Amino acid sequence: MKAKSGGGKASAVAAANIAFIKYWGIRDERLVLPVNPSISMTLRSCLSRCTAELLDDGAETQVFLRTESGELAPAPDGFANGVREQVERLCEWAGESRSMRIAAHNNFPTGAGLASSASGFTALTVAVLGALGREVDPTEMSVLARRSGSGSAARSVFGGYVEWPAGESEDAGHGVQLAPPEYWDLCNVVAIVDPRPKSVSSREGHRLAPSSPYYQRRQEELPGRLEIVRRAIAARDLELLGPVIEKDAVELHLVAMSSRRPIFYWQAGTLAVLEAARQLRSQGVQVYCTIDAGPNVHLICRPEDEEAVAETVERLAQVEFVIRDRVGGPPTLDDRHLF
Amino acid sequence: MKAKSGGGKASAVAAANIAFIKYWGIRDERLVLPVNPSISMTLRSCLSRCTAELLDDGAETQVFLRTESGELAPAPDGFANGVREQVERLCEWAGESRSMRIAAHNNFPTGAGLASSASGFTALTVAVLGALGREVDPTEMSVLARRSGSGSAARSVFGGYVEWPAGESEDAGHGVQLAPPEYWDLCNVVAIVDPRPKSVSSREGHRLAPSSPYYQRRQEELPGRLEIVRRAIAARDLELLGPVIEKDAVELHLVAMSSRRPIFYWQAGTLAVLEAARQLRSQGVQVYCTIDAGPNVHLICRPEDEEAVAETVERLAQVEFVIRDRVGGPPTLDDRHLF
Repeated sequence: MKAKSGGGKASAVAAANIAFIKYWGIRDERLVLPVNPSISMTLRSCLSRCTAELLDDGAETQVFLRTESGELAPAPDGFANGVREQVERLCEWAGESRSMRIAAHNNFPTGAGLASSASGFTALTVAVLGALGREVDPTEMSVLARRSGSGSAARSVFGGYVEWPAGESEDAGHGVQLAPPEYWDLCNVVAIVDPRPKSVSSREGHRLAPSSPYYQRRQEELPGRLEIVRRAIAARDLELLGPVIEKDAVELHLVAMSSRRPIFYWQAGTLAVLEAARQLRSQGVQVYCTIDAGPNVHLICRPEDEEAVAETVERLAQVEFVIRDRVGGPPTLDDRHLF
Repeated sequence: MKAKSGGGKASAVAAANIAFIKYWGIRDERLVLPVNPSISMTLRSCLSRCTAELLDDGAETQVFLRTESGELAPAPDGFANGVREQVERLCEWAGESRSMRIAAHNNFPTGAGLASSASGFTALTVAVLGALGREVDPTEMSVLARRSGSGSAARSVFGGYVEWPAGESEDAGHGVQLAPPEYWDLCNVVAIVDPRPKSVSSREGHRLAPSSPYYQRRQEELPGRLEIVRRAIAARDLELLGPVIEKDAVELHLVAMSSRRPIFYWQAGTLAVLEAARQLRSQGVQVYCTIDAGPNVHLICRPEDEEAVAETVERLAQVEFVIRDRVGGPPTLDDRHLF
């Protein structure tokens, strides 16, 4: 990846990803190294865009979000601080002492368990390095994106199906592509039961995870599940993939609901969608659910079943709307700047 | 307990109970011995009534339910068979070879996770022994009621607060009263989110329980939790009792949702009531939830908070109605026969 012409300013687009086996629990919070490996599918339509521009020396890094009206507004402090730290980290890595103007935008609900931080920090990392004129291979980009604090950004740097091993060291903590997007055309119908930001952050969830009496047991289950998911992706076998990802997602939430203090990400609509998926399966439709740290449900299915799945969950009273997404590619740089 | 005058026919009333620490998993299905001890509160208003009358020799035992219109109708086969087996068991125990006419009625939803089998089989056992003119002390009654197949009937034989140890032998499997009802006036506001019979029986749930990867871990937690509940009852300390019973109820369902196959008793309304209880607590109301094998939520609170709790959950769209119940006494015999 390389900055487009017009050095000093770059825009990047990166997609969210949906984890089939999720990480829940962090081994090293500073280095952002997870307790367990995770495997995800990078999406096509849930996108974050970021524009980064170098500022003159002496200025402070400024962070903006594009609002619904299309204007830029100063970002809330928490988000702005995370962005500033990542900009500083990347400049330091590049050996430059610079500040930047940053603008960001998501085309999907933010902070609602849809991996908006993965896509957002990947887009930021790609845009900043673009503005600095640095060429970086995806492996190094993955390490740098991960350091933002959003571990799953390590996966959004790649398209298709991606594993993020529980790297033992700083440099080993990067994603690895298991298969490109064109290898297996899977759909992700996202049932949005609540688009608002979740009340407990994933970061807090990772911290609390080991306090659940059931945490260790899930960890013991994971190596076998990861192996099944790898095999299922290699064989493009949804009937092999589906049950294990649905099981693991439910159990991640069981760990959350039994951590001290308990975290209830599930809402009424979450259960309604899980039940709808069981009903669809009883009618022969291959559809399996997974749920990130939030109330919304991702229904993984084949393209020929996408409409039936989407229409079924759209009819549920507790579903606000549905996003029809698919497997997608890696982040890209372009010239469609946000300012 | 003894049959009233008019030997050969007796009517009994018994109450459901709500377990603070539940049993989930059965050690001996034939003897109905649980894997772990349980502790419950016998209720006052969720009642089963049963009338038993000896028939002339040679007749078959007949089983009726009183319908909503007040008529008696033949009971469905599954229920009738369970009743017939218990009648035979009790007659055999009494050394008599008799058949009976049985009629039963619950004043609350049946098979919906409200321990209707505990109250129903306790009432049946008391009525049948009454019709047989047998005096039985509560300890022996508890053993006999348990053998019906509804283990928690072992607890409904006693009023107040009752422990059912994981008896090592047939005769050790009886309830023990920890405190009488007047010792501690606790309320149980039952939020009915679905009054229909649950789709997976408790019996099936007990069978599947050990297949959950988290089953064993919950078992390890139980001795400590049971001890806290005993201490909390002795000290009438709701702040000590509440967190542990809510935690254990949620985790029982976590085991159910992760057993192979998974059982989802929770419905949308279940989560809504759990959330409402957390909100009430954040406002200083001492209220704690427990959930039997079903979607409905029992909110345990003090009498001075009963109205606030009931009104709050009644307002929830997913709550069909509320039962205001309290701690109650043991089963009784009377002459209000169902036929």
